[in-house]
Formats: sequence, C-alpha cells, structure tokens
Amino acid sequence: MKTIELLEGALPADRVRRDEATRRAHAHDYWAFEAIHDVAGHPAEPPPAVVFPQSTAEVSTILEIADAQRTAIVPYGLGSGVCGAVRPGADALVVDLSRMAALLDVNAEAATARVQAGLGGSECERLLQERGFTLGHFPQSIAVSSVGGWVATRASGQLSTRYGNIEDMVLALEVVLPGGRVLRTFPAPRAATGPDLRQLVLGSEGTLGIVTEIDFKLWPRPAVQAGFAARLASWEDGLEVTRELLQAGWRPAVLRLYDGIEAQRNFNPWFPERDPLLLVRSEGSEAMRGALDLELAAARDACRRRGGEDLGDEPLEHWLGQRNHVPSWDELLGKGLVVDTIEVSATWDRIGALHRRVTGAIEAVPGVLVASGHTSHGYTSGVNIYFTFVGSATEEKEQKRIYTAAWGAAMEATIECGGSIAHHHGIGRVRRDYLPREIGEVGIEVLRSVKKALDPRGIMNPGVQL
Amino acid sequence: MKTIELLEGALPADRVRRDEATRRAHAHDYWAFEAIHDVAGHPAEPPPAVVFPQSTAEVSTILEIADAQRTAIVPYGLGSGVCGAVRPGADALVVDLSRMAALLDVNAEAATARVQAGLGGSECERLLQERGFTLGHFPQSIAVSSVGGWVATRASGQLSTRYGNIEDMVLALEVVLPGGRVLRTFPAPRAATGPDLRQLVLGSEGTLGIVTEIDFKLWPRPAVQAGFAARLASWEDGLEVTRELLQAGWRPAVLRLYDGIEAQRNFNPWFPERDPLLLVRSEGSEAMRGALDLELAAARDACRRRGGEDLGDEPLEHWLGQRNHVPSWDELLGKGLVVDTIEVSATWDRIGALHRRVTGAIEAVPGVLVASGHTSHGYTSGVNIYFTFVGSATEEKEQKRIYTAAWGAAMEATIECGGSIAHHHGIGRVRRDYLPREIGEVGIEVLRSVKKALDPRGIMNPGVQL
Repeated sequence: MKTIELLEGALPADRVRRDEATRRAHAHDYWAFEAIHDVAGHPAEPPPAVVFPQSTAEVSTILEIADAQRTAIVPYGLGSGVCGAVRPGADALVVDLSRMAALLDVNAEAATARVQAGLGGSECERLLQERGFTLGHFPQSIAVSSVGGWVATRASGQLSTRYGNIEDMVLALEVVLPGGRVLRTFPAPRAATGPDLRQLVLGSEGTLGIVTEIDFKLWPRPAVQAGFAARLASWEDGLEVTRELLQAGWRPAVLRLYDGIEAQRNFNPWFPERDPLLLVRSEGSEAMRGALDLELAAARDACRRRGGEDLGDEPLEHWLGQRNHVPSWDELLGKGLVVDTIEVSATWDRIGALHRRVTGAIEAVPGVLVASGHTSHGYTSGVNIYFTFVGSATEEKEQKRIYTAAWGAAMEATIECGGSIAHHHGIGRVRRDYLPREIGEVGIEVLRSVKKALDPRGIMNPGVQL
Repeated sequence: MKTIELLEGALPADRVRRDEATRRAHAHDYWAFEAIHDVAGHPAEPPPAVVFPQSTAEVSTILEIADAQRTAIVPYGLGSGVCGAVRPGADALVVDLSRMAALLDVNAEAATARVQAGLGGSECERLLQERGFTLGHFPQSIAVSSVGGWVATRASGQLSTRYGNIEDMVLALEVVLPGGRVLRTFPAPRAATGPDLRQLVLGSEGTLGIVTEIDFKLWPRPAVQAGFAARLASWEDGLEVTRELLQAGWRPAVLRLYDGIEAQRNFNPWFPERDPLLLVRSEGSEAMRGALDLELAAARDACRRRGGEDLGDEPLEHWLGQRNHVPSWDELLGKGLVVDTIEVSATWDRIGALHRRVTGAIEAVPGVLVASGHTSHGYTSGVNIYFTFVGSATEEKEQKRIYTAAWGAAMEATIECGGSIAHHHGIGRVRRDYLPREIGEVGIEVLRSVKKALDPRGIMNPGVQL
C-alpha cells in the first residue's frame, strides 16, 4: 500500500509496524462478537500496518497523508471497546496512540491536568492521586482502557453519580482532523462561544478525527469513603429508593441496584435467594465529612422505610475488590457460554417496565440461559440499566445466532419501552442499525452532514456509527 | 418581497405582520449599542415582516419556504439578548416564537417537563413551581427572556452553581432546520449514541435552526433557602474562599463575590467603603436541610479563617429583592451614561490577574468613568467575572467610541490573560471579531463547515457568530 510507504518516509523510524503479531493484535477491539470468530479459528483480517505516533505533529502528518491518499484510518487506544468500533480489515490502517501516554501538566490551583490521549486509565489515576487529585472516572475497564478511548466512546465510570460522566470531566481537548488540521478547544471553566465543539468529538468513536490531548477537571483525592449494602423486598423498591435520593439532591458516588439474579450470582454469601441488592457509597473531601454522613443516613433511612435490610459494608467491600474484573470472552466461549453486557437508559417512568421487557425478550431467545441487570449510573430524570445475558452454545454458527438475537431482542425491547439504546459503551458496529430508531432519520442526516463536513473523503473509521 | 407573500399564502391568517409598530419592535434585541442608535434617532432598519408561528409545523413551513427563496431568517424569543444576535435589517424576516408559549407536559415521576420555546422564563418557573418543581434557572433577565432564547444563547442563571447552566437542564430539544426538517433529540437521562446533537443547538444563536420545544430536567421546589453575606479583607481572599468551597465539593446556589466598587455601589448601607462582598445562599430539598446547614457553616468558616466579617442575611435579602432588575439603556443614555456588562471566565490561576487587567484596560479608555466586576458562576476549575463599565458622553459618536473601545479593551485584556471571552451571553455581533482568538482558525473552520452542512444556503441569522 502506497500510503504505508509514504508514512514510513514521513515519520521517524519505528513508527510504522507491519509485523504479523502487531497487525493481529490490532485486528479488532474487545467486542465479544469478534471473540466468537477468534475462538472458532476465523479471526478478523488484520490491518496491513499499525502506526504508532509519538506526538500531535506526527498524528497530523498521518492524517494529512491518509486523507490525500484516501486511506481509511482506525484510531486505537488500548483496544478495550466492546461495540466493534475497531475492525480495520485489509484496507484501513490502525493508528495506535499508546506511545502518547504522558501526563503533561497538573495545574494544582485550577485543579486541572493535561494528558495525552494514549495514557492508560489506571496510570492516569495513579499519577493524579500522587499529586493529591482524582479524576473521578473509574470504569470497570480502567486497567485496560485509555483516556482518549473514554472521550471517543463517551464513557462512564462507576462513581459517575458523584463525579459525572466523561463529558463532565473534559475541560478542553485537542483533536487532529482529516487532512491534518489540529483543533484545540479553549480551556474555559464554562463558555457561551457558540456550539460546544468538545461535544462533537465526545462519542464520535474515531469517525471525525483522532483525539490527541485532553485537559481534565480534577477533584481532590477523597478523604472520606464509606457505605453500606441493603437487601430490598423488590426491584421496584430499589428503584424508588434510588429515585428518591437523586431527586432530593443526594449524589452518592456509588448507587447500584442489582436485580435478584445478579445479587445471587455476584453476592451469593449474602444472597442465597434472588433478592435485589442496593450498594451505596459516599465519598468526598474531609470538609464534606458531615454532609456525607448525612447522605448515607438518608440512604439508610430510605431503604428502611421500604422494609430494606441493612447488610453493613461487607457486600460493598466484596464489590470494591472485584469491580475492575474484565471477563475473558475466550474463556467463557471455551466453556460453551455466549456472554455479553448491554447498557441502556431510560427515564424513571419507563425504567421498571424496560427491565422486565428487556430481560424477558432476551430470555425468549432460544439458547439463552438467563438475562439480568443492574443500575449503576443515576440521574434526577432516570437511570441506566446494565444488562448481562448468558447463552449456551459450542458451535460458532449457533453462538453467533444467539449473540445477534439477544442483542436484537434487547435493542427492540428497549426502543419499544422508550429507552435509549446506549448509556456509555457507544454505537460502534453492534448498535449501528438501531441508531436511526433513536435519533431519527433527521438525526442521522445531521450526523452524516457533520461527518461529511469534517471528513469529506470519509477516511475516519468507516463503518462505525453511520 | 415574494417570500412574504408565499408565507401569507401558506400559513393561517394573522401569522404574518407587516405593520410598522411590529416591525420596529423587532428591529434589534437589547444590545446596548443599538440603544445608542435609537436614542440618537438613528434606529436600525426594521425587517419587512415578522412571522408569528403557532406550531412546529408552521415553523417548518416557514423554513421550507425561506430556504427555497434564500431569504434570511432571524429567530426571536423575547428580544432580551444583549449581544446583537437580532438585527434583521431590510433583507431578513423575523420569526417571533412568542405565540408558542405552552407548558406541554410535566412528568412528575421523571421530574421533566416539555415546553414550547417561546415560553417566558418567569411564567415557565411559575407553572413549574405550581406543580412542585423548579427548573433552577434564574437569569437576571428571567422576566423578559424566553426558554428558547436561553438555549440559543447558552444562558446561565443566578443559581447555576447549584443547578448548573442551561446545557445541564436540557434533556432533549426539538429544532427546525433550514428546509423545514425537524430534528428531535432523544430524551435519555444520558446516552452514548454518537456526538451530542443538543450541543450543536445550544449556543448556536439562531444560526443553525429554530428551537421549537425543549424537554427540561427539573428539581423539587426548594424547601430550604438560607444564606449570609460577608465583608472580606481583599478580593483575593474572596476568590480563595470561593475556590476552596467549590473544590471541596460544596455547591451553594449563590456564591457571588463583588469587588469593592460594586459592593459600595450596590450595597452601600453595609459598604460605605470599597470592601469586597461575598454573598452565599444554599438551597435544596427538605431532605438535605442538614447538609445545607453544614454547607453554610463551611462557607462561614472559610470566610472567618480569612478575617471576613459576617454581615448576616440583610445584604443577601437586599440582593434577592433587586436581582431581576434589568437596566434601561435608554434611561442611562438619557443621563449621558454609556453602560454595559461583559461576562468572561477563566481558570483559578488566571482570574485574579484578569480582573485587574480588564478593569484597568477599560478604565484607560478616555470617557470611561469606572469599571468593576463580580463573580457569579463558580466551578472547580475557575469562575466567571461579570464586568460593568460606565462611561460619560452625550453625543452619539462619542458614545459609540466609548462603547466600542471599552468592549475592545475588555476582550483584548481577557484574551491576553488566558480567559474565555463569553461566559453566558453569547457571541452575537459584539464579540464576533474576537471568536477566532478563542477557538482558533481551525475552530472557526469547523463551525463554518458545520454551518454550511446544516444551512447550505446560509439563511439562518447571517452575520452572527461567524
């Protein structure tokens, strides 16, 4: 491919790699559907080369050459995406940001930090905590995902109810556009200077450009962390407790409601039966200790008023110890299990029916053993549900049928119940066909016209979202 | 104009008005610069007609016809904008949304409401409070501004530190695009479904389409409201108190720091000398009463530790009684005073120098009597400053010179100090020339290309922002 030669000529040595292992390692992200292909011995075709830029200027050079050559480019952080946004195939080049992984600056007075997009999540948090801060973003994938990936997918962390989602944390960002132009948004605490350009990039999944740097807003490293678990009489009681607390104005860092199936599966010592479980954890500065105590007291009281049973903090500690475990699709498939998670959201008036309908619809798929869910990100207006399904099949074809049917059932039921199809994993390829149902044909037209305006030759991650 | 006839033919009777009074009333918004022209007897040329649609379908018809005819359209809420975003001239038609002013629905369970864009701010809040809710958006202009205008300008209310800015309140919106297509974003509590299309519309100042409906997130009507005022030894002390409280995680609804000039001018009974004044007010649900008490105690303690003097709640009550007063430019000009406000923002490390430099730069303009400022919207990363300048001149030419020079001095000093040029009033015409300095040439190119993608014939509010 001529583009590869041009890149090798334009970039310093060792930036372009064509070896088999590197190419294979970048053939797809962590989409479970690809794992089915891999385990069956039919892996996705790898890209012809992977480019490892070490600066924004190098990313700019790459996108200048690729645009001129009309060569498709697939940005790659640490590859932990679960929606199929990375699948270059034989015609696209992968740009791997992992060599751009520096913490560039911490502004202690403004509580902000500038980082490069390839920085790993755990390392970012470690560096910030060393300096007395936290970003407050703790996705399950923190050990295997990059800060740039968080921006590109519009990620959420487990403490989002306290600290917000990724869009609440980004003060400014730098993104390289096709052709090589560098857009840097202004690091204003808040501004009314036209449409918010950050928001074009957040959630764009590499379809508009490559995020290279991010200015994050920080919080002081928490001095207070405390919580409890409660057994509730019903899932509906748990939803009401959650809604009541959030609409009253409380913002516990953790407010997770597991349905009976998930409580029994993940908290078996305390949940031999299928009762719903609520985890609550408050955290914040020393100055807020008293207010955080009141927050937990309010949560305990809300549970008690609905007949909940306080289980102390042991189930919470158990969860804290496991919360960053990322399941191995290969291992599960090796056991004949087809597993995936599907996160959606809905307003409070719709969420109860949605949970019943989605789990029911998934379980009606032949081959599915069980479907379950928990809430993990709450708002005044509603909440997400993070569904998990488990199917049983040993043959590739059957595994793919179950996988596709379970996703289809979940998406259709979510749409019918008035829910939003994606809370925080993005669209990628797995949800692409359902996006028009959420944002409408006009929404799709608007996204397409914005895409065409910024990426007229369509080189950025084709096949994703639109 | 042929477009007017086409509109009269396509819309029900009485939608199109060509009478002199209506046209003159829509010749411009509340930009102080236009008041200079008006008072001098040189008013802006009025539009040839004003259209008053009564439904989204009618707005769609208007933008279909206008687009086909390539006739410029200027959306108009209640005309309280202060940056010159409304100045149709003889070639553009004004679309006045004031007949689309209904509260369409309140969802008590999800704490959301759907309203039409022309609804007045005070009326919106009154209707919501009757139902037990608050939007939490209280701009000084609340009595004279519309909810659609808030969205279009990316507005902030006086209680933003507690309730957020307008972009935090919009669950979903409906906007009619040139050609008549209707985009309705999905009312998700939160979603990761590609770029956030709401954010293209928020702050677009009518340059991309006409906002017709908004789904707002609500809060329970507050049960607790309490606060105090403090005299501080220095402006820097006040900034430090504000920063400390916000970075610790407190979110008082009101946290306003006045410099000595403004304290003396607006709170003279308590501030015969030019000492800085901090106003603090907490509010929220009955459930949070204890936590709000702690918030106020923390604020009092922070003031005391820096030698501040607690003045009780009288100055706060005084402010609450006056806070929605909108100055009359005409009256001031009649007294020979050229007055305007300029709101900017900056991160904490830059805000102290910015206040000094901007007030100094404005006061160096010949004819300016005084420049002063207060903070009113705080964040972990920084804060806004709302500057006021007063100049003295009786002649139109001199008034315009002072006005333009004061704005120029403020913008230049803000940019030099690393501040953002607009916190919550928008760009309009008054800041248009400075926007490239904030978002860069690439930012301007991106905005232009998005504009061209959504409004290829350039009919939406030409001359604003870009």
